[in-house]
Amino acid sequence: MEGKKKYNIAIVGASGYTGSELARILVQHQKVEIKMITSETHTGKPFSELHPQFLGILDLPLESAEEVSKNQLDVVFLALPHGVSMEYIKKWKDKKAMMIDLSGDYRLSGPDVYKNWYKQDHVFPEAFDRAIYGLPELHENRIRGAQLVANPGCYPTASILSLAPLFKDQLIKEGSVVIDAKSGTSGAGVKASNTTHFSNVNDNFKAYGLRIHRHTIEIEEQLGNLQKEKAKIQFTPHLLPVDRGILATSYAQVNEEMSQKKLDEIYGEFYKGKPFVRLRSSIPALKDVRGSNYCDIMPIWDERTQRVIVLSVIDNLVKGAAGQAVHNMNLMLGIPQETGLLQSPMQP
Amino acid sequence: MEGKKKYNIAIVGASGYTGSELARILVQHQKVEIKMITSETHTGKPFSELHPQFLGILDLPLESAEEVSKNQLDVVFLALPHGVSMEYIKKWKDKKAMMIDLSGDYRLSGPDVYKNWYKQDHVFPEAFDRAIYGLPELHENRIRGAQLVANPGCYPTASILSLAPLFKDQLIKEGSVVIDAKSGTSGAGVKASNTTHFSNVNDNFKAYGLRIHRHTIEIEEQLGNLQKEKAKIQFTPHLLPVDRGILATSYAQVNEEMSQKKLDEIYGEFYKGKPFVRLRSSIPALKDVRGSNYCDIMPIWDERTQRVIVLSVIDNLVKGAAGQAVHNMNLMLGIPQETGLLQSPMQP
Amino acid sequence: MEGKKKYNIAIVGASGYTGSELARILVQHQKVEIKMITSETHTGKPFSELHPQFLGILDLPLESAEEVSKNQLDVVFLALPHGVSMEYIKKWKDKKAMMIDLSGDYRLSGPDVYKNWYKQDHVFPEAFDRAIYGLPELHENRIRGAQLVANPGCYPTASILSLAPLFKDQLIKEGSVVIDAKSGTSGAGVKASNTTHFSNVNDNFKAYGLRIHRHTIEIEEQLGNLQKEKAKIQFTPHLLPVDRGILATSYAQVNEEMSQKKLDEIYGEFYKGKPFVRLRSSIPALKDVRGSNYCDIMPIWDERTQRVIVLSVIDNLVKGAAGQAVHNMNLMLGIPQETGLLQSPMQP
Amino acid sequence: MEGKKKYNIAIVGASGYTGSELARILVQHQKVEIKMITSETHTGKPFSELHPQFLGILDLPLESAEEVSKNQLDVVFLALPHGVSMEYIKKWKDKKAMMIDLSGDYRLSGPDVYKNWYKQDHVFPEAFDRAIYGLPELHENRIRGAQLVANPGCYPTASILSLAPLFKDQLIKEGSVVIDAKSGTSGAGVKASNTTHFSNVNDNFKAYGLRIHRHTIEIEEQLGNLQKEKAKIQFTPHLLPVDRGILATSYAQVNEEMSQKKLDEIYGEFYKGKPFVRLRSSIPALKDVRGSNYCDIMPIWDERTQRVIVLSVIDNLVKGAAGQAVHNMNLMLGIPQETGLLQSPMQP
Repeated sequence: MEGKKKYNIAIVGASGYTGSELARILVQHQKVEIKMITSETHTGKPFSELHPQFLGILDLPLESAEEVSKNQLDVVFLALPHGVSMEYIKKWKDKKAMMIDLSGDYRLSGPDVYKNWYKQDHVFPEAFDRAIYGLPELHENRIRGAQLVANPGCYPTASILSLAPLFKDQLIKEGSVVIDAKSGTSGAGVKASNTTHFSNVNDNFKAYGLRIHRHTIEIEEQLGNLQKEKAKIQFTPHLLPVDRGILATSYAQVNEEMSQKKLDEIYGEFYKGKPFVRLRSSIPALKDVRGSNYCDIMPIWDERTQRVIVLSVIDNLVKGAAGQAVHNMNLMLGIPQETGLLQSPMQP
Repeated sequence: MEGKKKYNIAIVGASGYTGSELARILVQHQKVEIKMITSETHTGKPFSELHPQFLGILDLPLESAEEVSKNQLDVVFLALPHGVSMEYIKKWKDKKAMMIDLSGDYRLSGPDVYKNWYKQDHVFPEAFDRAIYGLPELHENRIRGAQLVANPGCYPTASILSLAPLFKDQLIKEGSVVIDAKSGTSGAGVKASNTTHFSNVNDNFKAYGLRIHRHTIEIEEQLGNLQKEKAKIQFTPHLLPVDRGILATSYAQVNEEMSQKKLDEIYGEFYKGKPFVRLRSSIPALKDVRGSNYCDIMPIWDERTQRVIVLSVIDNLVKGAAGQAVHNMNLMLGIPQETGLLQSPMQP
Repeated sequence: MEGKKKYNIAIVGASGYTGSELARILVQHQKVEIKMITSETHTGKPFSELHPQFLGILDLPLESAEEVSKNQLDVVFLALPHGVSMEYIKKWKDKKAMMIDLSGDYRLSGPDVYKNWYKQDHVFPEAFDRAIYGLPELHENRIRGAQLVANPGCYPTASILSLAPLFKDQLIKEGSVVIDAKSGTSGAGVKASNTTHFSNVNDNFKAYGLRIHRHTIEIEEQLGNLQKEKAKIQFTPHLLPVDRGILATSYAQVNEEMSQKKLDEIYGEFYKGKPFVRLRSSIPALKDVRGSNYCDIMPIWDERTQRVIVLSVIDNLVKGAAGQAVHNMNLMLGIPQETGLLQSPMQP
Repeated sequence: MEGKKKYNIAIVGASGYTGSELARILVQHQKVEIKMITSETHTGKPFSELHPQFLGILDLPLESAEEVSKNQLDVVFLALPHGVSMEYIKKWKDKKAMMIDLSGDYRLSGPDVYKNWYKQDHVFPEAFDRAIYGLPELHENRIRGAQLVANPGCYPTASILSLAPLFKDQLIKEGSVVIDAKSGTSGAGVKASNTTHFSNVNDNFKAYGLRIHRHTIEIEEQLGNLQKEKAKIQFTPHLLPVDRGILATSYAQVNEEMSQKKLDEIYGEFYKGKPFVRLRSSIPALKDVRGSNYCDIMPIWDERTQRVIVLSVIDNLVKGAAGQAVHNMNLMLGIPQETGLLQSPMQP
């Protein structure tokens, strides 16, 4: 029976937060079955040994990524570091499975830009042509037909969605955009480091990656495409003493008369029918979306300073990674886009 | 069609954490429909105005509890402070709906014990006889036939489950039990107070309620019933700088020879077939169960000191409140007990 | 003997964080003696009953502020809410003691601006003329001769210091300044409220006071004075899940050619000989200054975007309140300005 | 002039938290001068490059520990891991400087016990005879005459002080003691690891080191000495999501009649004249002592369960490490014991 058909899924890369978050979402997704999860360093162990929260829920033994070739798979999620992902995409280039890459390897426009910002050569530039940037609110139709999707970065998701309606309408005054973004530490990954050492983060706060963070160019390219003219934005990330969540506070000057009413109309129009963007009239907080696939956005017109301020919040592991990847999968498979993604945010 | 039948549900008391947590679980529960949510202070407002995380998910306008009498309801959840709950249970005593009381009003054995520990008279003692203590791992059969369930306290849930197998087998040396429990602040409720003021909790830690915490008697009565002899336990709660979760570290001396192997068998036997208790062989942490209905338990035999140590963790708002209430509802309605309760823990 | 002379000090307003922080600093200050501390609601109680950390250190019984008139005092600190402070300054207008007001009552240029931003009438505008804005890095000489000092707000301290050198040199491109500031919750005061309820802050983050925060005008007036032309800045505060600390991330475009070297020279020149400003070449974090009177500043030139970014961090209760007040006192009394203010930051 | 004499000090081991905490305390200590700080991995760098909070305060270049032999030093602090410390104590055995060892190498009674619990051979057992256990509340006189002091562990400091009065009076019922202790993460050191990875600690809580933690034997030996009979205690540490602080909740049954009054007298008597122990009549919290050398203790008699509960809190880096080491130094040098240790706790 059609309704009972389940798609076979693989998660490549089990140890990181995007891997475990994909598992958290997909074990409850009624249209898929997790066929395999891979880890090169923990091969043979049950997934739940790595992530004890899954005890009794997902005890599948971890396999090597080499096994992917031997399985009939409908969708492969690559939850791998950039630079590693492209190696597998090259290796599996003739495989039929749809691929969703959660790394940064195919988010930019081509190998030169990639090299400039990621400081390494791209080993499989051929795939850039068919890789679709997987931000459903911008590219839904192209994603539906895609075989390879580059899942957006977490900061770009929050940042692009916060300003897309204005760029789309070519309302942005050149050079005026400042995006001051703040992220929880899960964005820095599962691996212990000085950056994520508890006492360096707890009760603390700092900026990082000033001027040169890789997500800058990803934001600039996408927003530039929207306004059909190159964009230059000022992007500054900060590290919050929280687990999950990104708040982007975006500032822009506009090139025509503006009001709160007009601003609300522009955003309302742009996001009509988009199930995971919620326009807010009260100030959004990280926990309003935590654990969910929502992006809450509040655009504000400051008459006194003649500037637009936009607040946008996401859960970096869900809308900023695993949830958006599942959203992309749903579109690629042609099933209802909300499937498996309707859990309510967890607050407190 | 039988499979499509949905039960009509009311949540009485919308503003607290148990109210919003019931909503979080029930909006995804396939066998129920939330017909009404009540709040006396916010009547008329959408539920999502009080709890913005529910925007677009549950925008139901809040009603007065007075409206409960006018509706056809299958189950009523009372998410109210103790002392208030019993007033409504009295008022609705002829109503047909099943009632699940999340307050402490019917957890104890009778009005005298209630008065001793809650320092107030009980206004409707008649219902004690039919109120079933809703800890499914102990009283599953009685809950199945109940019309009124007293949902256990959060500390008692973690504490009783950690020692029940030993009390059941009458293995506990009298007077030897110490339960040192630590809870996140959501247990203290949604209302702002000095106790929950951020700078009094953050980067801080302290004990409270020493010697006289109400949950002491609840634990003693339940464990005493199990061993068919009164129990006296030392119970000390502490306030953790975390949102959710209880860890109970329980210590006991036993009255016959013990070993790790024997201990594991006792616990394995007792919890066989209980879907929400997971016996652990690695040390459980709060986040291993956060957002879920699991109680993870690790019993340890310390040969050197001849003492049993049991670690048990729950999410105080789920297994310690709303999740357990839904578990009780499932049993009362005769539907599969796991229904709507299988979300994976959220880590990080 | 001259060296032994101690000045008599009163702290008016014991219950708040600025009151207890003044006590923490002043009990170790070798040139002063705390003669009295006042609280209208806790009169008679030892100070250490309100703040148990002072047990055995400062057990002085709290007095009513009415007693201030009866004592020989050299310096009176007013650690009171705005609107209350001015009442006392009016009442004590003929008292000889130097006064340091930690509220916002005399920080602005006059009663009209005050009314506009604080939404209430000023009851004692006469004192505006003699009130000196107590930011020692800008107004050291005027503070030395002052009898009444308006201690700066916490955000303005971090914000003004971050941009003062550029405004002083009239380098700022009009309308280009965005100050995105983030503060710990102690800035919201000691009183329990929804805003500071643990579970609303912990693992969470949000903006507040957009467009209309009172500190906006305080920053604009001070920076405007420096460049001898009105300034308009975009100021957005955010609430961090930390106890103490403000990070201001300031963005500005400049009206002449700039380089990192030139920027460093401008800041180096401006802050030469200022003991509590530390120019940083590594990214400053809140904990680098926690518990201390330092303001760490890092100016960055972004060649790509042609924009200056300045990071500045302070402890809002020390450099942003009590420490700066003591600094002002030292200047007013003519004793070495660092006296009592050299404790090292506490990290972790 | 005698009063002006400053003692020359070295801190061996600059990178850890005990090293930086020693620096924080000693830069303000009027009787000492920090002559050298060592680090084998960062030799040549300024101390403030490792710990930016000391910029402008302590910029001393780091030296190799080999240089210690070449300097005239009065006191050497060894802020090193166990196993490393004893190597240096062996190497410097003929050096005249007083030595204070902050590792565990000389805290136990001898090399066999050491090997049993630290799982390694002791390389310089000869020094056990002259090493004094540096808990001033117990061994003040012996510390005054010592050349080598073994600075107590953090958990033992909080634990021993909480029960010493009862053991001293031989009041403890054998086998009845349970110490349930909770520590901030700085106790786990400065080095990044899974244990201290932010998202593994934040909003989380767990036990560790059950049954076998090394501090168990240290507590047992010291308490056993006090009652002149071997002691066996149940000790369980837990990891708190806070930077600093230990709370030990200790439970004991007693072998004679007890009352709150009697208990208070026993503790009052024992701690009379001890400047850093504060007996509390309100429940102590970690922040009541944070950043300070105080140990706050509250003994409670539970009439209902006939059990003593003792709450004790310390800052693990101060009273549990660097502060206590400086206290020991003061005693060894014969200067007033409070010197340099009177900073007030930092709250919030």
